[in-house]
Amino acid sequence: MKKTYLGAAFYPEVYGKDLPTLKQDIEFMKKGGFNVMRIAEFSWSCMEPHDGVYDFEWLHTIVDTLAENGIKTIMCTPSATPPAWFTKKYPEALSIDESGRRKQHGARRHCCSNVPVYREYSCRIAEKLAKEFANDPAVIGWQLDNEIATFDRGCSCPDCMRAFHTRLRQKFGSIENLNKAWNLNMWSQAYESFEDIPHPDERTWSNPSLISEYTSFNSDSHADFMRIQAETLRANGVTAPIGTDMMPFFLQSHPKTTAPLDVIQFNHYNTLDNLWVSTFWFNYCQNLKPDVPFWNTETSTSFNGSAAIPAARYPLGFCRINTLLPFAFGSEMNCYWLWRSHPSGHELMHGSVITTQGRPLYNFNEIEQVSALLDKSEDFLASTKAGRPDFAMTASCNTGIMFIASPTVEKFDYIKKITEAYHSFFGTGMLPQVIEPCMPLDDVKVLYSPYLMTLEEGDFAARLEKWINDGGIWIAGPLTDIRNSELAKYPDSPYGILERITGIYNDFGMSAASIPAKVVWNSGLVGDTDVWTDVFTLTDGMESLATYYSNDIEPSPLDGLTAAAFCPVGKGGVIVLGTQPDAAAMAEIARYAYAKAGIDPGVTSDSNVLAIERIGERNGLVLAEVEHRAGSVQLDGSYRDLATGNIHSGTVELRPYGFMVLEKL
Amino acid sequence: MKKTYLGAAFYPEVYGKDLPTLKQDIEFMKKGGFNVMRIAEFSWSCMEPHDGVYDFEWLHTIVDTLAENGIKTIMCTPSATPPAWFTKKYPEALSIDESGRRKQHGARRHCCSNVPVYREYSCRIAEKLAKEFANDPAVIGWQLDNEIATFDRGCSCPDCMRAFHTRLRQKFGSIENLNKAWNLNMWSQAYESFEDIPHPDERTWSNPSLISEYTSFNSDSHADFMRIQAETLRANGVTAPIGTDMMPFFLQSHPKTTAPLDVIQFNHYNTLDNLWVSTFWFNYCQNLKPDVPFWNTETSTSFNGSAAIPAARYPLGFCRINTLLPFAFGSEMNCYWLWRSHPSGHELMHGSVITTQGRPLYNFNEIEQVSALLDKSEDFLASTKAGRPDFAMTASCNTGIMFIASPTVEKFDYIKKITEAYHSFFGTGMLPQVIEPCMPLDDVKVLYSPYLMTLEEGDFAARLEKWINDGGIWIAGPLTDIRNSELAKYPDSPYGILERITGIYNDFGMSAASIPAKVVWNSGLVGDTDVWTDVFTLTDGMESLATYYSNDIEPSPLDGLTAAAFCPVGKGGVIVLGTQPDAAAMAEIARYAYAKAGIDPGVTSDSNVLAIERIGERNGLVLAEVEHRAGSVQLDGSYRDLATGNIHSGTVELRPYGFMVLEKL
Amino acid sequence: MKKTYLGAAFYPEVYGKDLPTLKQDIEFMKKGGFNVMRIAEFSWSCMEPHDGVYDFEWLHTIVDTLAENGIKTIMCTPSATPPAWFTKKYPEALSIDESGRRKQHGARRHCCSNVPVYREYSCRIAEKLAKEFANDPAVIGWQLDNEIATFDRGCSCPDCMRAFHTRLRQKFGSIENLNKAWNLNMWSQAYESFEDIPHPDERTWSNPSLISEYTSFNSDSHADFMRIQAETLRANGVTAPIGTDMMPFFLQSHPKTTAPLDVIQFNHYNTLDNLWVSTFWFNYCQNLKPDVPFWNTETSTSFNGSAAIPAARYPLGFCRINTLLPFAFGSEMNCYWLWRSHPSGHELMHGSVITTQGRPLYNFNEIEQVSALLDKSEDFLASTKAGRPDFAMTASCNTGIMFIASPTVEKFDYIKKITEAYHSFFGTGMLPQVIEPCMPLDDVKVLYSPYLMTLEEGDFAARLEKWINDGGIWIAGPLTDIRNSELAKYPDSPYGILERITGIYNDFGMSAASIPAKVVWNSGLVGDTDVWTDVFTLTDGMESLATYYSNDIEPSPLDGLTAAAFCPVGKGGVIVLGTQPDAAAMAEIARYAYAKAGIDPGVTSDSNVLAIERIGERNGLVLAEVEHRAGSVQLDGSYRDLATGNIHSGTVELRPYGFMVLEKL
Repeated sequence: MKKTYLGAAFYPEVYGKDLPTLKQDIEFMKKGGFNVMRIAEFSWSCMEPHDGVYDFEWLHTIVDTLAENGIKTIMCTPSATPPAWFTKKYPEALSIDESGRRKQHGARRHCCSNVPVYREYSCRIAEKLAKEFANDPAVIGWQLDNEIATFDRGCSCPDCMRAFHTRLRQKFGSIENLNKAWNLNMWSQAYESFEDIPHPDERTWSNPSLISEYTSFNSDSHADFMRIQAETLRANGVTAPIGTDMMPFFLQSHPKTTAPLDVIQFNHYNTLDNLWVSTFWFNYCQNLKPDVPFWNTETSTSFNGSAAIPAARYPLGFCRINTLLPFAFGSEMNCYWLWRSHPSGHELMHGSVITTQGRPLYNFNEIEQVSALLDKSEDFLASTKAGRPDFAMTASCNTGIMFIASPTVEKFDYIKKITEAYHSFFGTGMLPQVIEPCMPLDDVKVLYSPYLMTLEEGDFAARLEKWINDGGIWIAGPLTDIRNSELAKYPDSPYGILERITGIYNDFGMSAASIPAKVVWNSGLVGDTDVWTDVFTLTDGMESLATYYSNDIEPSPLDGLTAAAFCPVGKGGVIVLGTQPDAAAMAEIARYAYAKAGIDPGVTSDSNVLAIERIGERNGLVLAEVEHRAGSVQLDGSYRDLATGNIHSGTVELRPYGFMVLEKL
Repeated sequence: MKKTYLGAAFYPEVYGKDLPTLKQDIEFMKKGGFNVMRIAEFSWSCMEPHDGVYDFEWLHTIVDTLAENGIKTIMCTPSATPPAWFTKKYPEALSIDESGRRKQHGARRHCCSNVPVYREYSCRIAEKLAKEFANDPAVIGWQLDNEIATFDRGCSCPDCMRAFHTRLRQKFGSIENLNKAWNLNMWSQAYESFEDIPHPDERTWSNPSLISEYTSFNSDSHADFMRIQAETLRANGVTAPIGTDMMPFFLQSHPKTTAPLDVIQFNHYNTLDNLWVSTFWFNYCQNLKPDVPFWNTETSTSFNGSAAIPAARYPLGFCRINTLLPFAFGSEMNCYWLWRSHPSGHELMHGSVITTQGRPLYNFNEIEQVSALLDKSEDFLASTKAGRPDFAMTASCNTGIMFIASPTVEKFDYIKKITEAYHSFFGTGMLPQVIEPCMPLDDVKVLYSPYLMTLEEGDFAARLEKWINDGGIWIAGPLTDIRNSELAKYPDSPYGILERITGIYNDFGMSAASIPAKVVWNSGLVGDTDVWTDVFTLTDGMESLATYYSNDIEPSPLDGLTAAAFCPVGKGGVIVLGTQPDAAAMAEIARYAYAKAGIDPGVTSDSNVLAIERIGERNGLVLAEVEHRAGSVQLDGSYRDLATGNIHSGTVELRPYGFMVLEKL
Repeated sequence: MKKTYLGAAFYPEVYGKDLPTLKQDIEFMKKGGFNVMRIAEFSWSCMEPHDGVYDFEWLHTIVDTLAENGIKTIMCTPSATPPAWFTKKYPEALSIDESGRRKQHGARRHCCSNVPVYREYSCRIAEKLAKEFANDPAVIGWQLDNEIATFDRGCSCPDCMRAFHTRLRQKFGSIENLNKAWNLNMWSQAYESFEDIPHPDERTWSNPSLISEYTSFNSDSHADFMRIQAETLRANGVTAPIGTDMMPFFLQSHPKTTAPLDVIQFNHYNTLDNLWVSTFWFNYCQNLKPDVPFWNTETSTSFNGSAAIPAARYPLGFCRINTLLPFAFGSEMNCYWLWRSHPSGHELMHGSVITTQGRPLYNFNEIEQVSALLDKSEDFLASTKAGRPDFAMTASCNTGIMFIASPTVEKFDYIKKITEAYHSFFGTGMLPQVIEPCMPLDDVKVLYSPYLMTLEEGDFAARLEKWINDGGIWIAGPLTDIRNSELAKYPDSPYGILERITGIYNDFGMSAASIPAKVVWNSGLVGDTDVWTDVFTLTDGMESLATYYSNDIEPSPLDGLTAAAFCPVGKGGVIVLGTQPDAAAMAEIARYAYAKAGIDPGVTSDSNVLAIERIGERNGLVLAEVEHRAGSVQLDGSYRDLATGNIHSGTVELRPYGFMVLEKL
């Protein structure tokens, strides 16, 4: 049996329930080496053409025919697109949009996750679907809904407002507590009752704490909607893993959404300009729930597009590298969106495996290459895990949501900035595991937390402090530990725990753009300040790691003041960063932390090449060039290329978008 | 009698019904050589100050006084601006805007063309006006409404929705047919009844087929509103030609709107940056209904502007060339907007012939030059037609509307792109006639159809196929024949007829921006790909005209594949373009097609000079420099300059914005 | 007693009514030399926690504790932020926003100044506050509301519309008069009754006269709301000066708002990029009501910010110069916004004197320098006035509002352009007093009026004409005297009075961007045209001051025509400018006017240094470098530096952001 899956999103129903193209589809699937298809996510109206009237025969035909040809199925619940008879009968299920009006039928995700009747009908169709397919061995997994998330301030329907007020009441107990927690003496904002708290709509200069809370509420509402669907499937016999396909954003909490689910499903669309960014997310996904599988459920073979194709480039080899990258980071699967281009309506300008007319796209041969490579390397991949556990860096959905409500610095984009920080380690042999603060720190020796606005996520602060005292080296900041869970500053210190546990003193801080200054690091590296500039006063035992100085043009008020320091704490210590280092300085900081922690980096490479260690029953490396130019890696021994059988040692060269799976000899 | 008209939009009513400035106006009109004024288009409240109470005396005074001074009138129906008493009495006549609210009184076109009471009152005032002026010999033409069109998704009032649902029912018969035609199994969009289909408002990710259909509906609603006004005028004795002034956009269908009308009326406002673009439109207008006159009803003497003057340049000579250009393309008339600057309120910063205070603008002398030139050349112009009929290029409002709903490639602008394609022929002696697909192809020998999304416009596809078989050479694509009339792809071929009639095979296609590639044409010209890149497999008898190859920086997946080909069909053939050629390559393609068709180009010139052949009882050329720099033309014999009497042969030089009418000797 | 005030906005209530941080605050206030705090502007809910239930004890504690420590108070009425119980009980008090919906509680200024119940409650809390603090000697002044203004088209609630219709009825008497004044025959706009006139909302192409009138109405509504609050305070015993803090915009009329008030209060936030602009406003403020004090009520110690800090620079020394500049222009006070950073919610990323945690910011030492300098120079400053009264330039809120409704030239920004014109005089020894047209011209000898759209402001036109005839030299234009008070053009002349009083003739005019032209001034200076280009015909006795000519690239239609002229009028004369001169040419024009008026410039300097004359019982100069680079001044005698005691004569050098108070010896 195959240990890796290559698949696609498959919408035969758009060609008619009589499945006129199914035979042709299967021919090309077999030719391309496909072994899984994801189906039915938007086909509610085909499953239940009228209220309570069901038709699954066509769906069985698809699943069965695929299975007969060696192709498994991921079955989807169709809640993202309720039928017209539903939205017509229950207009109250439609979300209320920014303009204060109900959304209308004809697009996607127009119903509100908090409306009881929508939940009821969504679970009912899920139940029927489970009863049909729970015991079908061809169905290897389930997907709930599709790309559930809220991109603006969300719905303000009565069900939402009621649920939000209940949430606030449960969280704060009394309105006085909420007024205090959110500092609502300011501007006479203080509310008299929970029911008075409004939706933070975008036409209003809304309170950041309210925005943050409502964004979390939107996320939690969706997560709960996923949970009840999962429970419905399980109650009706489903045992195959259940997930929901998430996107590379933090508006929807990944940890909370996936908590009750059995598989991490992830969708992404990158181009020549940002292919490397996807590897941050694969890393994040593989660590989000380490004990469950990670499936890359969507990416494009080529161009993205709905009514028009955007002007992004997909050079020769892009499809191949883009398909293989998730496998380097522990994914068991890659699915394209979509198998066959739509014939009309929405999204018909999106790249696919075959065209509407059943002709393969220009890069079908790259897909065949992927299949061949997976054949030869899947045993190795299945018996190893990606990356060493001793270096980790935090990425927090919770903090992401807070930064959206309170960006702190103009245009600050948390995901962009932590992704850049992650990029600093490319080529250094020190690629961190990307983890949520809720993850255990047991195997971690060095932890890097850039812009981790609050430590008040579950018991993270307490675990972190203990871990440091037990020997961990924490690289903190800038903009780390600066707010409590309600987005408020701390009253006595700019930090929640940093000053207390380290003894360091923050004199003051401000946006890096506000003040002319440069920074010189202990290694001699000189750089610009970035994002923020905190100034510290050190005490005995601390080591200054960087100092501000005046730039060439004008005197800096920070000249000579301390920008970063190491503070010993128990058996470990904290490296406090007052400003964000550039990539070279960040690598130096990591090397310093590695030395403190007594660990060694792995193999080094050019910065455009990722060298991902694979560790387990067998050992090796996956090499991937991600910037479409040549690059090389300095191997630390002899390795066998599983695709060619060639033995490599010393320097190995990769062509643009090259990808190699190497087993250590 | 004059054979050409020089006029302006005239609003004496804004100075008061006692017409205090009329005498001064007429003095300047005579001085400038004006012989027509367009009046009354916004003066409903002066004609009908109260419901059913009419006053046309002031209007007769204007018409009569002008006539006594040799100035004719174009009379306008005032439906664009109903009076306050009307919108107050019938608020249901106001359109519903994007925010879901009724528009309000005080601007223009705030009433909905589909509301019966608005239609009734609009026809009633048209009837009264006709009864007053139908037999007035001074009224040489009529204009309906003003610049009727919908710029966004249009009105969603109950009358509109009812009419739209009726239209759909008539078109599709059953909702099942509509669901199928629009592919509404996708996303469970399928509707249960026509009444459920919503307005495609911009806050919704609306279905492109719905958007396209509604845009056509808006256009057809306005066209029908024009039709009933025209019928009202005719029923009340009007025999002078009736038109409506259209704009250089395709949101409002020109062929459908003008079908029941007697004259093409056209408004445009160009500047130094885009003066040449206007010539595309004049060409289009002269061919839209070849048997009726074409009148340029609006352009500016200088700057455009409402509450502010935009930062566009109008150099010395601009007024002269801008006024004369339409005459080169068959227009009988040029009218300025406006005669005298408004004294306050809207549009008071717009250029005019004289100022609010009755002083001529700086370029009044250029207008006098125009009059003098028209005096000397109008006999020649009246006895000739512009351009040779053997080369034509298609421009389709229908396709334009479809591209708005489905741009196919990001930022693709159909009008801009076909205009650029038209510009390729400047200077080559091969300026095509711009025609709608509904036009006959009888005299055409080479037809160029760039981006003609669908051939399903009336019987165009069938006529085209026959015309090719009978010997026509069709230059097709890219993005031509790719959708049916409902915006759907074809199921078995990327094209409706192209593969079937030619035998060519489209391997695949994608946006040009998605893939690095260059293209080499048979002539040896090398260029970039543009807009799209289709790859073809040829069979015996076809000739490859262009091949893709890798660009300097990176390998292309298209390297060595065919980009364009000639396919013989019957006595004619098709040149299939997979990517848009640059100007030089396009001219080569046209020369190749001319050779296939056995026809010869005309006189050549610098690309900034238009040399428009005038053919008829007499023969000659109109030369026009359109980029404000010197340029020259290579004459093919001896010509007399009708302004100076000078004889020219060989190379003739034009100064910036030069304009010459030359009769062949 | 101190003669200057250094203060800050102080919000102890956000830390709790038990004032837990008050002691620490006072320690830092004393250390920094602060002697005034502005309090309570947003604390209505703390003063009146329930309808009719009051609590002023905590407020007395603050005022008293500050007073005990030598710190005075500015007390504020809290109407900008009514409590939740109020907006809940009286939702009709909430403004109706652009989307047609009521604003919601939780931000600022969400209630409408025209709603009676909001006025009633606002006056009631003002009355209570007055009764508590009218006789408290620690309260040295009062502030009403906060930054009252309307940034968009304002509220459209029934109370507003009723008040607007009443205003129109009072102003015009009959609807016919309004229709005529606004030219509403155009587009059949004419209304049947005042009640039909709609709110000029932004979704509509609204009539500019309506927009202008409604903007004035908004401003007047707010001004009246301020007036009734002031009267309430006075009726309840307040004798300390009452003001309201205004902003550097003209949407809210400064003269009308401050007319019934006792002190000019002003807020501004400038950065490295535009620090000099603030001096325009200080100049304007010191002249707005010359007999009342001017207090700079808000500026930042450093960075601005709400949920994020913008990317603006605040170099070393910025805080010092930014604090001192208003004192150079007659301000008695500078207050920072804010004393201590907010702990959470809105605006918590704004710069302050101390942080949320009670730590001074990096530039606290600059504040200490300010205090020291004020100690040494306040006697001198208190006994002098800023600037000479013989040269003035007009800045008109009325014209500012009109230009918003009718920008005339694309992107024309009246404030930006008059500020640039003011900047022309930096370094020339001819810095004008900036005055509203309502101010007396008694001491003025040269008056400069750039872009003064209308002279129809009170009796300005008549006073101006008399002043010119009596010997004044008026520099007028461009875009001056071009509209009447209703935004209409004049019927017989492009100007209201200019042609009549001077005899000059305006041939035509257009936007400078429309026409290629350069201009040569009599001094020989050559420059570009800017904003506008009027062409004049002169008669005997007039002197041409500038001529248009063709630029290097293309011929200009204006070549050789007159661009500016001096016209003798009575004992004085008018310099008419057809286009805006650049800085050098403007300075030449001013020198020419000075010569005509028989007056002499003062000391000259580099253009980055302001040399503000201080005249009175003592005499001297304040020097300020405003562009963060070195600069020098050419003194006209010997001066003592009041900070150092040093004597300067000849050339004195200033370091970047240098500031010196020099007394003439």
